[in-house]
Amino acid sequence: MKQNVYDNHEFFKGYSELRKNNKGFNQYLDEPAIDSLLPNLENLNILDMGCGFGFFSTKAIKKGAKSYIGIDISEKMISEAKLLENEKVQFINCPVEDYKYPDEMFNVVVSSVCFHYVKDIKFIFQQIAKSLKKSGIFIFSVEHPVCTALLKGWYTEKTKEHWPIDNYFQESKRYQNWFVENVVKYHRTIETYANSLIDGGFNIEKILEPCPSKETLEKRKDLIDHTRRPPILIMKGRKKC
Amino acid sequence: MKQNVYDNHEFFKGYSELRKNNKGFNQYLDEPAIDSLLPNLENLNILDMGCGFGFFSTKAIKKGAKSYIGIDISEKMISEAKLLENEKVQFINCPVEDYKYPDEMFNVVVSSVCFHYVKDIKFIFQQIAKSLKKSGIFIFSVEHPVCTALLKGWYTEKTKEHWPIDNYFQESKRYQNWFVENVVKYHRTIETYANSLIDGGFNIEKILEPCPSKETLEKRKDLIDHTRRPPILIMKGRKKC
Repeated sequence: MKQNVYDNHEFFKGYSELRKNNKGFNQYLDEPAIDSLLPNLENLNILDMGCGFGFFSTKAIKKGAKSYIGIDISEKMISEAKLLENEKVQFINCPVEDYKYPDEMFNVVVSSVCFHYVKDIKFIFQQIAKSLKKSGIFIFSVEHPVCTALLKGWYTEKTKEHWPIDNYFQESKRYQNWFVENVVKYHRTIETYANSLIDGGFNIEKILEPCPSKETLEKRKDLIDHTRRPPILIMKGRKKC
Repeated sequence: MKQNVYDNHEFFKGYSELRKNNKGFNQYLDEPAIDSLLPNLENLNILDMGCGFGFFSTKAIKKGAKSYIGIDISEKMISEAKLLENEKVQFINCPVEDYKYPDEMFNVVVSSVCFHYVKDIKFIFQQIAKSLKKSGIFIFSVEHPVCTALLKGWYTEKTKEHWPIDNYFQESKRYQNWFVENVVKYHRTIETYANSLIDGGFNIEKILEPCPSKETLEKRKDLIDHTRRPPILIMKGRKKC
């Protein structure tokens, strides 16, 4: 069963507060890194998987995109995202597993910190390849395997001599307390992410592990842990000819 | 200055004992993973960087390779390796940084747990691309960044609740006690290894993080730590057309 924790009232409240007030790492780490990998979006068709509130749609259209489709499992988020809809922008309330991927429709597929909620990425990556035009680009970020590995989820103790890692090769569910108890995430290795991308029909063009800059740390001291081990893994693939 | 710890008497003694009696992880983790990525070697020209005692030469020739060149910084190791020389097999005592890479000579370049001793891999990777024939293959393994990250080197305490990671983004020298004190290794991130390979002129065909199998653990219980976090990172690249 696909998890839709985002529509849990408590989770939605906490997560909305985090994203709308830029309290997470998204604005400072994930988004700038993904932006750095984007091609010129002019006249391109974009698919945004796990789009949440659809923030990326505004950026994409501003950069000249021809069309933008955002999909997300969360009804609550999509209902807010729909306020951004216009002739170029469309949102669909749908798990990424169930979306009917059209053939060779998109030039760019992006997905920001979503796939660690998805059980079978191999199938999804193949669907994405199918739905991309020739030489289309696919960029995704996930919580870094170094952080998702531990069976008890991301470490939260206040005093840390170092960051713990364990159970790295156990590719399975992890239960994490994040706004609510037992949020399900899927841990998988870097090997699995990379080879699923390659086997799905992509050449890897870049791998990023963003780290907060000095300027970021001046604004957001709480991000210091993210200088100790990589919090996010990002891969950019290009559909093989 | 390039480090040649392998010619240190104490180090050489310890390392020789480790390799010749298969006490390390090489035979059980590194070599089978590299073997799984090799193409059919029949009639191919092979370069082995950081070849040590040259064990791979025997395997390569047995698999039908046309020629094999092994290079290593250690005079002691190369002098032993030279006992394996014949009309197809040649060993050269030379740091990988100083080798005069011939143009488009090789079909396959392999390097087993060597590049974490090398300061500038970007230059080396470009040289390797230059020395490979069209669509040539480059396979390398290194100590995994998850293990080399910690400033005090690989963790050696006997009781471990978990494996520690820290200082991941500090790409610089690490000093480790291994047979002798202060063996120098260079820590770099997965991002750097992957993008250096891509920018050097390769498509990544596979990334492996080998883990000991149940059968291996029955023979070698001491390898249990290597099931907790990845000890080795392996990448296979193919020279871009």
